[in-house]
Amino acid sequence: MVNSAQEAVRSHILKAAAELFAKQGYHATGMKELELASGMGRSSLYYYFANKEELLFEITTRYLRELIDAGHQLLEESISAEDRLRRFSRFVLRNTANNLSELTVCFRELHAVTGANQQTLLDIHRDYENVWARMFAVGVSDGVFATADTITIKAAIGMHHYSYLWLRAEGKQSPESVADRFCNLLIHGVSANSSH
Amino acid sequence: MVNSAQEAVRSHILKAAAELFAKQGYHATGMKELELASGMGRSSLYYYFANKEELLFEITTRYLRELIDAGHQLLEESISAEDRLRRFSRFVLRNTANNLSELTVCFRELHAVTGANQQTLLDIHRDYENVWARMFAVGVSDGVFATADTITIKAAIGMHHYSYLWLRAEGKQSPESVADRFCNLLIHGVSANSSH
Repeated sequence: MVNSAQEAVRSHILKAAAELFAKQGYHATGMKELELASGMGRSSLYYYFANKEELLFEITTRYLRELIDAGHQLLEESISAEDRLRRFSRFVLRNTANNLSELTVCFRELHAVTGANQQTLLDIHRDYENVWARMFAVGVSDGVFATADTITIKAAIGMHHYSYLWLRAEGKQSPESVADRFCNLLIHGVSANSSH
Repeated sequence: MVNSAQEAVRSHILKAAAELFAKQGYHATGMKELELASGMGRSSLYYYFANKEELLFEITTRYLRELIDAGHQLLEESISAEDRLRRFSRFVLRNTANNLSELTVCFRELHAVTGANQQTLLDIHRDYENVWARMFAVGVSDGVFATADTITIKAAIGMHHYSYLWLRAEGKQSPESVADRFCNLLIHGVSANSSH
């Protein structure tokens, strides 16, 4: 069990590393720069992370684990499928807006995660996709949604995650209002003749 | 005016470079490797591209210019807004499946495009987004679509472009069949009560 002070320091290091990696690339970033950016000595850094690759792995997986946990919690709540989808969408986009550096690193440095970590990363991605799939599948069994096929799931994930390129936490359109529009689109489409 | 033999050689070099950049990163790739991968001598390479950054710029913009040209052609045709959207979607996903290395380079090396090229790249991205926006806007003025707002456009682009991570030209689901599902979703949504 890690105590909360240690957890705060870990988060601080991860945020500093994500920003550096996003700005100048993973391979171009040295431990000396990580020391300067985090304001910590090398031995302290190594106390928290064994090496640079462990930092990268944490950056590329932590926000996904947060999304998975939030999804599992929502799946256990007794709420309507539409409400669940809307709340999850809001969580995903707020989390995205708060982790723009992490997502930049994710898209850019996926190939730099190697060995056993690579398989774990793929597993986490699969778990994350399964959360979306279950949200839609529950909707289908409730008679609220017409489909929960793979392509619909991929489309939903795509529209949400591509947003790291333009979504901003303090933007004119809040992550929550964007989520609401995304969900309107996912649920009702844009047909002028549909029910919305 | 470039003749077709020269154009074929240019395309050959760009494809070889995109595959190398996608595999090992732009900065990690040297001119010697580009010579080996393209099977061409350095002086021939330099005849076509002044330097490595020009190669990168071409890779990150060429497929977008193809998409923009196709979109403009479709916008000039007298077809229904729905048919136009469906044909554009198919074109985008077939083009994506044929340019997986290029899209990988695009997502990963966007920051490596600098100077005047960076502004041109941003302009091309804006032009591309405008093509999608016009497709929806025409649909609204025809009374077929209910909305052409920015978030809908971003969602449509997001679901299409995120697909480079899983779409395959020879996959079980063809790019065209994926496009059809995407358009069903965009137009009708997943509500069990909508008109589809």
